[in-house]
Amino acid sequence: MIHAMRHYFDWAATALPINRKEPVLHAGLSIPFGNPSSIHAEGKAARMALEDARSRCAQALGVTAEELYFTSGGTESNAMILFSLLCRPRRTNNSQSAALLYSAAEHPSVRENAPVLEQLGIPCASIGIETDGRTSIAMLERALKKNPAPRMVAIMAVNNETGAINDMDALSSVIRKQRGAPIHFHCDAVQGAGKIHLDLHGWGIDSASLSAHKLGGSRGTGLLWLKSPITPLFRGGGQERKIRPGTENTAGSADLARVLEQYAGSALPPLYEAAVERMKLLIAALQNSGFFIPIPVDRKDEDRRFSPWILQGAFRNHAGNIIPGEVLVRALDERGFAISTGSACSAADKKRSVLDSMGLNRETSLGGIRISQGHSTTMDEIDMLAKTISELCRTL
Amino acid sequence: MIHAMRHYFDWAATALPINRKEPVLHAGLSIPFGNPSSIHAEGKAARMALEDARSRCAQALGVTAEELYFTSGGTESNAMILFSLLCRPRRTNNSQSAALLYSAAEHPSVRENAPVLEQLGIPCASIGIETDGRTSIAMLERALKKNPAPRMVAIMAVNNETGAINDMDALSSVIRKQRGAPIHFHCDAVQGAGKIHLDLHGWGIDSASLSAHKLGGSRGTGLLWLKSPITPLFRGGGQERKIRPGTENTAGSADLARVLEQYAGSALPPLYEAAVERMKLLIAALQNSGFFIPIPVDRKDEDRRFSPWILQGAFRNHAGNIIPGEVLVRALDERGFAISTGSACSAADKKRSVLDSMGLNRETSLGGIRISQGHSTTMDEIDMLAKTISELCRTL
Repeated sequence: MIHAMRHYFDWAATALPINRKEPVLHAGLSIPFGNPSSIHAEGKAARMALEDARSRCAQALGVTAEELYFTSGGTESNAMILFSLLCRPRRTNNSQSAALLYSAAEHPSVRENAPVLEQLGIPCASIGIETDGRTSIAMLERALKKNPAPRMVAIMAVNNETGAINDMDALSSVIRKQRGAPIHFHCDAVQGAGKIHLDLHGWGIDSASLSAHKLGGSRGTGLLWLKSPITPLFRGGGQERKIRPGTENTAGSADLARVLEQYAGSALPPLYEAAVERMKLLIAALQNSGFFIPIPVDRKDEDRRFSPWILQGAFRNHAGNIIPGEVLVRALDERGFAISTGSACSAADKKRSVLDSMGLNRETSLGGIRISQGHSTTMDEIDMLAKTISELCRTL
Repeated sequence: MIHAMRHYFDWAATALPINRKEPVLHAGLSIPFGNPSSIHAEGKAARMALEDARSRCAQALGVTAEELYFTSGGTESNAMILFSLLCRPRRTNNSQSAALLYSAAEHPSVRENAPVLEQLGIPCASIGIETDGRTSIAMLERALKKNPAPRMVAIMAVNNETGAINDMDALSSVIRKQRGAPIHFHCDAVQGAGKIHLDLHGWGIDSASLSAHKLGGSRGTGLLWLKSPITPLFRGGGQERKIRPGTENTAGSADLARVLEQYAGSALPPLYEAAVERMKLLIAALQNSGFFIPIPVDRKDEDRRFSPWILQGAFRNHAGNIIPGEVLVRALDERGFAISTGSACSAADKKRSVLDSMGLNRETSLGGIRISQGHSTTMDEIDMLAKTISELCRTL
């Protein structure tokens, strides 16, 4: 049973649906059921609904509908881009220069594919991150010096564990300056959409991944934004202009349009500023308790290097020892607060790769918990959370 | 606008949802929204719902829950198996023997991946089909003689264009007799689930693909049945016991369990027999009109070589000329009947690969239309369809 009064602080794992009474959503949507590839009236109606959804997503994201491809989620969008390397012409070079560079803080759906690509003859190398969790220009330049002819670079917009925001614009300038054949610059924007301002055209990237459920939309729905079409690995019925095979998820796509309209683009600024205010309150309250170690330690209560929707930090107990993150998460769960240590996607592994890459010592790294808020989080909930954590620190 | 009174005969493209007023489904379902990988109460509730859905699917399919993996649909399930070839140890042999054998009648989500695999160093060869559209033992034996050491064979259970049912049991016996290293036998069962008796364990196959929307379930949801785990190509957060990365679609999975319980396993026999009766009526009525050319021409009104849910055929007009399938489909659409020529998945291509592989002449092949019925199709609708087609044949 779930505790009667719950406070959800794990929005980075999955968002609370907008209407809590209809968690499965599609509430009120009436989407034609036909197969959009069918030529009869039912098919045409479904096609119209699908293209309408695509246009609305494009409008909310400030891109064109032709650049958007519906997928089954962020993980698939990332895999589509990475594995398109297998279908791109290989370059002949004698060096061991990596073909794929990815930041060490990437989501497992990018990072874990590197060893597979390696086995398939695509050398990969990771780009180090700074102690604040971001990929700096210096780190990227260092990686490009070692690996001067990558075919692809993958750097995420917002880190899912720390909220660290990468300066995509500056990073792409570095990549564009690299001599030689063009480099595909991919951005996992799953934790960015509806959370920070996305400038897909302005950032100078070639592709971006988005997920619906991180915004309160349907599970199993995502987007791939492509500046220009790629040659995908998987083939099939030619759907999504031959980029992504499989009968199109019309209802999921319409639902994604709905959440993007509600949270992204012009809808975002007030939501973002409200999140900033709540995060300021949270960090200040946690700092006041005296038990808090922000991760990174120099994260300020208002700090534009980080997404205001995600906070990573460790806590000391009354004796000054760092409380293991898992212990704190379980204790908070018992008190009605849903929080995680890091990525739900690697919860089973108990690894803290991202925090380790930031150069944290093992104790702090294992003490880290991730507090992620959402659009319906209230100041009261923030206040209760901070108080409950302080109480636990005094007793654990 | 869709014609006021519609009759849907394109169930093989996508099924009519059970409740026509709520085409987006999930009607009445209340599924925990949490991320099943999260360790808090919301996550655990979602995990329970997901595993409950898996158990119910397993029960309906007569397999164990441990053998089932949720995917985004049939296309992805097929791709997962085919591209796992890239992760399987390659065999050293000097011949040009194909590593993947697939029937010439496979769905595009199998067939269209062969050239990609070829490019990646996996030689592929197709297995011919008989004039009735089925893969015979003789055809399989011929392919195995030419390619004695395949690593994988892919043959579908029910063809999506003709309804031809393959004798999986007999085919697997041939494969199992082949000397050398074990061969993975994959079955695309998308048009089989809830339509014919599936005997996943008994057939002697190693894997099977299923899709929810072909049964009136959610778009973007499918299953992969695996006799034993494979090494998948795509990696990520370790979901689905590391076989299929990406946040699990809990609601879609629960919905798939619902439709499988409603249509597969013990629920199927009466539905199947009713479909046989309607198909008998349809074929007899079309035969009586004098314009009908069944595809294959020797398909009987009750013919256990074919799924009773799918009929392929061409029609002559009053002058004895075969009416182009597309012309007939459009004319029927205007009269309220939703029918397709073949696979919606390749509608855009205007190719009739499957019919061509059966050795049909071009005119008949281009005249073919696919009539596919579903669980809510009525005898009255069958009667109206047959009458309307006859009228059109007289005037077109």
